[in-house]
Amino acid sequence: MAKNKPQQEFVKEITPRDVDFAQWYTDVILKTDMVDYAPVRGCMVIKPYGYGIWELIQQKLDADFKATGHKNVYMPMLLPESLLMKEAEHVEGFAPEVAWVTQGGNEPLTERLAIRPTSETIFCTMYAKWVQSWRDLPMKYNQWCSVMRWEKSTRPFLRTSEFLWQEGHTLHATAEEAQEETLGMLEVYRKFAEEVLAIPVLVGRKSEMEKFAGARATYSMEAMMHDGKALQAGTTHNFGDNFAKAFDITFLSKDGKQEYVQETSWGVSTRLIGALIMVHGDDRGLVLPPKVAPIQAVLLPIAAHKPGVMDKTREIAAQLEAAGLRVYVDDRDTYSAGWKFNEWEMKGVPVRVEVGPRDIENGVVTVCRRDTLEKSQIALENVTDGVAQLLDEVQRGLFEKALAFRDSHIKDVTNMEELGEAVQDGFARAMWCGDDACELEVKNRFNAKTRNMPFDQTPIGDTCVCCGKKATKLIYFGKQY
Amino acid sequence: MAKNKPQQEFVKEITPRDVDFAQWYTDVILKTDMVDYAPVRGCMVIKPYGYGIWELIQQKLDADFKATGHKNVYMPMLLPESLLMKEAEHVEGFAPEVAWVTQGGNEPLTERLAIRPTSETIFCTMYAKWVQSWRDLPMKYNQWCSVMRWEKSTRPFLRTSEFLWQEGHTLHATAEEAQEETLGMLEVYRKFAEEVLAIPVLVGRKSEMEKFAGARATYSMEAMMHDGKALQAGTTHNFGDNFAKAFDITFLSKDGKQEYVQETSWGVSTRLIGALIMVHGDDRGLVLPPKVAPIQAVLLPIAAHKPGVMDKTREIAAQLEAAGLRVYVDDRDTYSAGWKFNEWEMKGVPVRVEVGPRDIENGVVTVCRRDTLEKSQIALENVTDGVAQLLDEVQRGLFEKALAFRDSHIKDVTNMEELGEAVQDGFARAMWCGDDACELEVKNRFNAKTRNMPFDQTPIGDTCVCCGKKATKLIYFGKQY
Repeated sequence: MAKNKPQQEFVKEITPRDVDFAQWYTDVILKTDMVDYAPVRGCMVIKPYGYGIWELIQQKLDADFKATGHKNVYMPMLLPESLLMKEAEHVEGFAPEVAWVTQGGNEPLTERLAIRPTSETIFCTMYAKWVQSWRDLPMKYNQWCSVMRWEKSTRPFLRTSEFLWQEGHTLHATAEEAQEETLGMLEVYRKFAEEVLAIPVLVGRKSEMEKFAGARATYSMEAMMHDGKALQAGTTHNFGDNFAKAFDITFLSKDGKQEYVQETSWGVSTRLIGALIMVHGDDRGLVLPPKVAPIQAVLLPIAAHKPGVMDKTREIAAQLEAAGLRVYVDDRDTYSAGWKFNEWEMKGVPVRVEVGPRDIENGVVTVCRRDTLEKSQIALENVTDGVAQLLDEVQRGLFEKALAFRDSHIKDVTNMEELGEAVQDGFARAMWCGDDACELEVKNRFNAKTRNMPFDQTPIGDTCVCCGKKATKLIYFGKQY
Repeated sequence: MAKNKPQQEFVKEITPRDVDFAQWYTDVILKTDMVDYAPVRGCMVIKPYGYGIWELIQQKLDADFKATGHKNVYMPMLLPESLLMKEAEHVEGFAPEVAWVTQGGNEPLTERLAIRPTSETIFCTMYAKWVQSWRDLPMKYNQWCSVMRWEKSTRPFLRTSEFLWQEGHTLHATAEEAQEETLGMLEVYRKFAEEVLAIPVLVGRKSEMEKFAGARATYSMEAMMHDGKALQAGTTHNFGDNFAKAFDITFLSKDGKQEYVQETSWGVSTRLIGALIMVHGDDRGLVLPPKVAPIQAVLLPIAAHKPGVMDKTREIAAQLEAAGLRVYVDDRDTYSAGWKFNEWEMKGVPVRVEVGPRDIENGVVTVCRRDTLEKSQIALENVTDGVAQLLDEVQRGLFEKALAFRDSHIKDVTNMEELGEAVQDGFARAMWCGDDACELEVKNRFNAKTRNMPFDQTPIGDTCVCCGKKATKLIYFGKQY
């Protein structure tokens, strides 16, 4: 068939990372069947292999949210224009990228409805109705949904008109509690990124220019991709009483006074999958951290026609599954072992287990870890623990490798020349006076933005990297996705 | 505060079922905090207590889908009008209730985009690209998402403009396999309804008039609500090659021929929560089957200030939790025990566990099951098994009660007078000639539609209940939600 190109060529068609990183990314996501383009501008179809990663991300984060006292809800996807207009900065930030519904069935609508670009306004509307007294606080809700932002240029997972995410929205009685929530959820995200996704992140506060539309303060975690660019992988916002005033959300305090609530929101999205790909992937394709790999170990029978090979393969698979591992037995007889090796390497499966007649005779299996491509043998009687341990090593190894890469690509800089050089292939760490003008100057000259200000503000100099005046902040700069 | 009405009155404000069933339903869903109205016509907000039920439904069904070889994907929510137009019956069925996006950011769109009312057209578009040969089949994908149908009159969970659902879409090489999938998923739904939701359902094939827009055959499960009306609680569709022809989805068969695929789809939605409420609820409020109850057992310390009571309550809660039960300790000191009893009964928690000083002395706890309100005692050393067993009994009891109710409200009828009477408070089972005209006649006279044709077609007569001509089908009639 014309549309069915020979699959042997398929796995060799990934552009090397250093030749063209953007093309490498596109090759990887399409050829590993994670995603496909949809016939709607800027929208993506998430295929089972990509969605399987998202399901694992959801499961783990959802458990973290519940363990920290949050509950899930579902808010409508359509927001009347008048709601979106209530908070001035917020509407200014989002209006240019809203998709508008103007017709329902056969009737034109009297008021346009926005497909939610984010849900602060509807949460606030409902919260104003639900909160009466201090007894109702804190109110800590989250939702998993899709949102729509009409983007001009798009790339699957990184920037698409529609994407999947979660958005937490919480109300608190005091500013202290709201700040504690804002930083607490940032820490939940950090731990998740580092311990589950194996992605080291820089956490800190965004500049005034880069904060969320309507927030008093925005915090982010910033990850470094293999090309040295930053990806803002998650944000938490402290709104103070900004939205509470716009939406009149008040409560009766313990002292019997009507007070405005303090509010936060926080979110991560399918961007995290983009980060996974660009942090861990290599020229052979994906490299998935075991904790979010839909398949953690692929079992390949070698000379499967020989007696005992298939039986032993299935027996091992059953043992691994019983131990809670996600495994797949590739028993297709239409492909060679070599071709299968390539395919599963491309798909980033953390561990390959080969089960061949000679290995069986010797009472072992041959295992190969995806991150280092190192082969070793595990005794059959120890196969479950052995594979589980190898997965732990891959998980840890990926984090350490990414951390070493990131740290070697962060440079302390003291002038614009050094800054411009550093952001060519990594981040610059610098002192800054805090003025928008300097931030804009860096953006205009180098196409690099401020990332965030770390919590440890120990100065590395006295003067602003840009204007030379007195510096007040330590901050990271980097180009971004 | 004016907006904070005394909560003691709150639990008494449920209209009795027999006075006004519709008002009872509205009272229950609002007063138990399952749902609230949204400021968008016909849309609902699902609050934590309602969403918690949906999460349990999702978890269990998703496991069933995966166990039967299905994988999850995510398709875009926006469908270009031209896609929706490709299958004639389908567009006719859905176009009148579509919400249309006509503007993206500041630019008017050149083609209108529909918010998906269902996703056959986008699945088919992608499938045409993905399927090449028989090796790619079957392709069995599902998605969990929200859909939009611009409804004129709406009721939370039962009929809203936006609702949450899952939609399975599968491709097969042969008509036999597609039919097997269509009936297989109907059986997955039936088991889920009966064993998890404790709702007995009638499964069978829908009439030509009532089938899905674009399907060759639609099957449904039909549940009877407490007012005798039907709720179509889930459907599976066999499309044959209908959509395959409209979207040109072909594959190279084993014999080397290009053939059209055979396709199915199937779905259930947040309607299931409406069914739960209307099947099991009573004049005190909700009654939840343990398997989908967000809280399975509520623990109430009695005279909590007395030494040892709170400690013992928490100890028991920890034991129940360790056994995998979902429990909640109500230690609020601002409400009386009696008020708490009422509240948790209203919320339908299957089992209440009272822990008081006298009980502790006697080495027991007092338990009360929500379905029968029977009280009994369980020895402290046996509390985990005792509560788990009671939950099993409630689960079984609810199903048996609903089954007895339903069966006593189905009448075999042989003429229109009997039919009209039977559908006043239940279903009519009747012989039917198979003509649309008779179906319409029943609909016009009694506002009752055909439900479905059971698989066991043993005739109960020879002549059509409406026209008196030769009957060919056994079918159920009933009014519907």
